[in-house]
This record gives sequence, structure tokens and C-alpha cells, in this order.
Amino acid sequence: MIMGQVMGSLWATRKDNKLNGMAFLVVKPLSYANESVTGEYFVAADNAGAGIGDTVLVTTGSAARTSFANSDVPVDAVIVGIVDSIEVTHD
Amino acid sequence: MIMGQVMGSLWATRKDNKLNGMAFLVVKPLSYANESVTGEYFVAADNAGAGIGDTVLVTTGSAARTSFANSDVPVDAVIVGIVDSIEVTHD
Amino acid sequence: MIMGQVMGSLWATRKDNKLNGMAFLVVKPLSYANESVTGEYFVAADNAGAGIGDTVLVTTGSAARTSFANSDVPVDAVIVGIVDSIEVTHD
Amino acid sequence: MIMGQVMGSLWATRKDNKLNGMAFLVVKPLSYANESVTGEYFVAADNAGAGIGDTVLVTTGSAARTSFANSDVPVDAVIVGIVDSIEVTHD
Amino acid sequence: MIMGQVMGSLWATRKDNKLNGMAFLVVKPLSYANESVTGEYFVAADNAGAGIGDTVLVTTGSAARTSFANSDVPVDAVIVGIVDSIEVTHD
Repeated sequence: MIMGQVMGSLWATRKDNKLNGMAFLVVKPLSYANESVTGEYFVAADNAGAGIGDTVLVTTGSAARTSFANSDVPVDAVIVGIVDSIEVTHD
Repeated sequence: MIMGQVMGSLWATRKDNKLNGMAFLVVKPLSYANESVTGEYFVAADNAGAGIGDTVLVTTGSAARTSFANSDVPVDAVIVGIVDSIEVTHD
Repeated sequence: MIMGQVMGSLWATRKDNKLNGMAFLVVKPLSYANESVTGEYFVAADNAGAGIGDTVLVTTGSAARTSFANSDVPVDAVIVGIVDSIEVTHD
Repeated sequence: MIMGQVMGSLWATRKDNKLNGMAFLVVKPLSYANESVTGEYFVAADNAGAGIGDTVLVTTGSAARTSFANSDVPVDAVIVGIVDSIEVTHD
Repeated sequence: MIMGQVMGSLWATRKDNKLNGMAFLVVKPLSYANESVTGEYFVAADNAGAGIGDTVLVTTGSAARTSFANSDVPVDAVIVGIVDSIEVTHD
């Protein structure tokens, strides 16, 4: 999974009906190894009630769909948790 | 999901029959973190009626197939929405 | 999906039986955004009758298997079409 | 699969219920080819009893879910083993 | 699929039971486009009887599991063939 920070929102009126009712958030991957290299922003469906600025845990790929009651949705990234804390050692 | 811009179209007469009737659009990933680094263009099947220049939301991987009535299609990227607006904070 | 050019072939006598009878082609991803950066070559099973030099459309991931009558094959990339033309705008 | 080193832990109280009871570890991919390039840290669910500093084997993608008794979990990376030793030749 | 060279082996005593009996090999992706850029080493389960130094064909993602009689295994990369020869044109 990816650690990220919610940077914004995306709105789309014309979209696949299966996406109706979902909130789409713009996420910046958090960088630990290469502070100077920031991974590109991506869009994740929110399933944890996240808000702008929150540090979140994002699940990608086919696993993302298992987070929904109806798993037949064209979603490849979902926010599955709001991060309380990350404790990382430095070597 | 990926935010992208539709840059063009691709035509292929000789192709897997399961792809018949689909429109294939060339998409440029939108860059927020590294303006100088542009992700490589890719091809997505259109399922939202997108046109050249549109900002679109693209779902990739196995999730892409869930956007079609018949999910047994060799498609790994699909345009699932036309983006109205993106609101991103800068830190 | 990826736009690529067929650069060569790969032969393997000792291989998973499920791969018997398939042609494996070496594909170079086509680059539009960063002409100086060429994506690494990869191998795709051919399901479109492609030849050396052809510009092709390649489907990757689990979607690749949907292109075969028997989808229980260890193939993660397949050539699903021969590209006639690509029309891309430049911004 | 990816060879990695466990660098830390991540806590999230508000999360998908399906993730309850799992330990989430922060993993640094081990680098052999490009010592100067460190892959970005990521988060993996622990299914091998790993601890900080351990060298681990991580399975990603849909395969990660097969490591759980209940495979309907939004997890895209799981620690499937504690590495005893890696023997690599240099060319 | 990826062309790679077997560089070594990995041993893990404490691991997911579903991985028992498998050989895990360390693979270096072969580079054609950017000789100076070597892709990072990764670990693949061997299903072709490969040895150190062999050039191999590796299938990744969910397709990897189709190479096993029991496909319910947490493996995301598998060596599916020993490469006899690769013939690549240069442009």
C-alpha cells in the first residue's frame, strides 16, 4: 500500500454510473527514501472519510475493489485508512 | 486512477475481435508534482464520450474491465469520466 | 494499453506447456512525451499476426489473458492489434 | 516478489474493517543494481511475524490476497517470508 | 513478460506455507533500450528449472499464478521459460 497525503478533490459529472456517489481525492505519495523525488499525484476513491491534508493509506490494483460492498466498480485506488502515525527508522 | 488529457486517437483495423467498436484515445498523464517530468502517453478505451483536449479520469488494470457490460475484453485502461474540475492545494 | 514497435523475437524451448504454440515478440514502447527516454523493451505474446517493425497495440496485466480462448495462460502482455495510424496533437 | 527491509510501522485507527487486526509495516525495497537509487518506501501487511530491521520477501498485487485465509481484503502487498539469506553473483 | 538473467537465490525458512517447496531466484531484468540503466533485481519463483546465469522469461502479476497447478499461491513473478535466443533489431 502507499502512504499519501490528500491534496485536493476531483469532480466529474459525466462518468461511469458505477462511480456515482463516490468522492475522488487527489493524493500525493509520501516520500521517505528520496525527499527530492515526489511521486506523481493520483486519484483515489475515498472509503475512509478522508479530508484535505490527511495522511492516508491507499490500496491500489484489484485489491481496491474489495473495499466496496459492490466490488464491480472501475476503481483502481482507494483510501482505506486515515493514518494516525508512522514510525520509521533511518539507517 | 490517473488524471490525463486526451491528445489523440489510434486506429487499428487488424485487432482482437473483442475490441471492435471501441474508440482508442491517446492520453497524456497530467503532472502536478514534477512539471518537468511528463509521464509517457498511453492508450485508453473511451467509455465516457471523451474528445481531444478533454481532461479525463482513467482507470487502469483489472478494474478497467468492470466498466464494460461485457468484462471479458483485453483492455487495461479506460476513460471512466470527463473531469469538470480539479482543486489541488500546494504545500 | 501501450503503443509499441516490434523489434524482434524470443525463443524458448524449455517453457511452461501452456505457452506452447505462442509467438513471443520483443516490443519497444513508443515514446511521445520524452523522446530521449525510451521505455525498456519487453516481451509480448502475439495475438494479431504482427511482424518485425510493425507498430502495435499491447494490452498488459490480467486483461492480456482475456485475449486467448483459454485464459488460463501465464501471459501478462499480448499484442491485440496492428496500428494503422496514430494521430496526436502537440501542445 | 520484492526483497525489502522493514523500516517501521504504520497505525490507522479509522480504517476499512477488513483491515482490523493486521500489522502494517513500512518496507524499504532492497537495491542491488543501483545502490544510489533507493526505491520508495511502501506499506505491506505482515503475514510472517516480521520485525523492524528484518529482511523480508514481499508479494504484491492480487497475489497478496491469496496469503490470507479470507482473501477479500483490500491489501496489495504482504510480507510472505523472513529472508534467511540472499546469494547474488555480480557480473 | 520480462527478459531477465538469474543472478542468485533467496532462502526463507519462515514463510507462508503455500510457498513451501518453491525455489526463489533473484533476477536482473535485461536492458536493451538503456544500457546504462539497469532495472532493479527482483525475486521470481522458478517453474522452469532455471539456474544461475540463465536468461529467462518471467511472467508477472496475476498471470504468474496460472503457471502453478494450485493457483492459490502468493507469487507475483514466475520464471516460465529458459530463453534459447533473442533476436532484436536496432534502429
